[in-house]
Amino acid sequence: MTKLVKPLILVTNDDGITSPGIRMLIKQMNLIGDVVVVAPNSPQSGKSHAISISESLRCDLIDTNSGPQIEYSCSGTPADCIKLGIHEILDRRPDIIVSGVNHGSNASVNVIYSGTMAAAIEGAMQGIPSIGFSILDYDWNADFSFAEKYISEITSKVIHQGLPKGVCLNVNIPKATHKDYKGVRVCHQTIGKWEEDFDKRKDPSGKDYYWMSGEFKNQDDSKSCDIRTLENNFISIVPIQFDLTSHDSIEILGEYFNK
Amino acid sequence: MTKLVKPLILVTNDDGITSPGIRMLIKQMNLIGDVVVVAPNSPQSGKSHAISISESLRCDLIDTNSGPQIEYSCSGTPADCIKLGIHEILDRRPDIIVSGVNHGSNASVNVIYSGTMAAAIEGAMQGIPSIGFSILDYDWNADFSFAEKYISEITSKVIHQGLPKGVCLNVNIPKATHKDYKGVRVCHQTIGKWEEDFDKRKDPSGKDYYWMSGEFKNQDDSKSCDIRTLENNFISIVPIQFDLTSHDSIEILGEYFNK
Repeated sequence: MTKLVKPLILVTNDDGITSPGIRMLIKQMNLIGDVVVVAPNSPQSGKSHAISISESLRCDLIDTNSGPQIEYSCSGTPADCIKLGIHEILDRRPDIIVSGVNHGSNASVNVIYSGTMAAAIEGAMQGIPSIGFSILDYDWNADFSFAEKYISEITSKVIHQGLPKGVCLNVNIPKATHKDYKGVRVCHQTIGKWEEDFDKRKDPSGKDYYWMSGEFKNQDDSKSCDIRTLENNFISIVPIQFDLTSHDSIEILGEYFNK
Repeated sequence: MTKLVKPLILVTNDDGITSPGIRMLIKQMNLIGDVVVVAPNSPQSGKSHAISISESLRCDLIDTNSGPQIEYSCSGTPADCIKLGIHEILDRRPDIIVSGVNHGSNASVNVIYSGTMAAAIEGAMQGIPSIGFSILDYDWNADFSFAEKYISEITSKVIHQGLPKGVCLNVNIPKATHKDYKGVRVCHQTIGKWEEDFDKRKDPSGKDYYWMSGEFKNQDDSKSCDIRTLENNFISIVPIQFDLTSHDSIEILGEYFNK
């Protein structure tokens, strides 16, 4: 008799290892495979694909006494966690990397600022099927009960089917109930941008400092963009690539610059 | 008689406002337009598109007594500098954003980790023609004399001609002399990845910590990738987009996930 080897699942996030989103994700992944967690020991929201070039890293085995998973708490960014997980912690390549569940939307250009999605992109860069999950609820005590089933389904599909080369998934889940929920749609990143507003204040010594806030401007009329998909109570799945080349522009710009 | 308005140029980098790369870039930009510098007050290499969500920002006018430019030294990341520059410091939209000159290559997937390139990408997201410049020399005292002329030429072309919508330029300059130099080529991001190696050490208390290092694996056979272009002593220009959607994958994945 051959022993069945369960899929090896590497889990991380950007809200930090204690956040409810990753605790829920770990619980679901324990039902699917062998789980190793390498996640940041502090919040890393908005850290994008930052990596620790000039600082050393801590990565400590911890015991949360909350299930069969093995957990490491790491001083670095989400991208650091994936690099450490693959090249130092794990003794074989994971079958899948899942990141999240992020507290808040990573739709549209948020994907670019997101540490959650950087972890998934790093996984794709290493040739491992990878998914970032986010829920459209910024509440620390968000209700994940609706999302659980779909997160497990999407993860299992990717484990069995794989993903196109060089592609990971950006999965956003609406703040919906089973009654409202319409289904899943693969769609594109909404065209839009953040317009920042800076709140200028004075510190107790009279020196200026700033707090950044901003407003999102949706510039996309398409019905198949991820924000519209989510507004219509679908789960949005955007296939994300790390080849940033605008291939369509090479010929046009070549005529102008090549010499 | 109408008064000629010079182009307004916003300058930043990721090596910090005192680095020789940005000082050289400021000098060249002063020959082309009115220059405002908003650059990090400390090294931000490898910070990618990180933004300061949870921390406040300092942005102080400084006087370097080194030319007509106006300079602000900022506590944030390169992407923060662009957001502050556009939405708080400048009273009109810049005609162009230039970032760098980075000490070291931003070819291939380095573009994803690079703070220099994140600043250019943030500029493109805000609809402003933007360029990131890097030189293939990690030496702090790199010789920029070869690069100066081409940086000015490329910047002037972009000011007059603009760029395709949603696209910025990743310009890498070989460590060449005028004698070796072959020309400029618009090309694509080399397919490749970093394979990390972690140096595990013990601190004075006997606890583990890690230093990350790595080796780049080139997986691209194409003659028109940026690394090959640079090896052949051309300046490489890669048009970079911030729509990360893998449009080719939407239909394939839709058949599998949509329901």
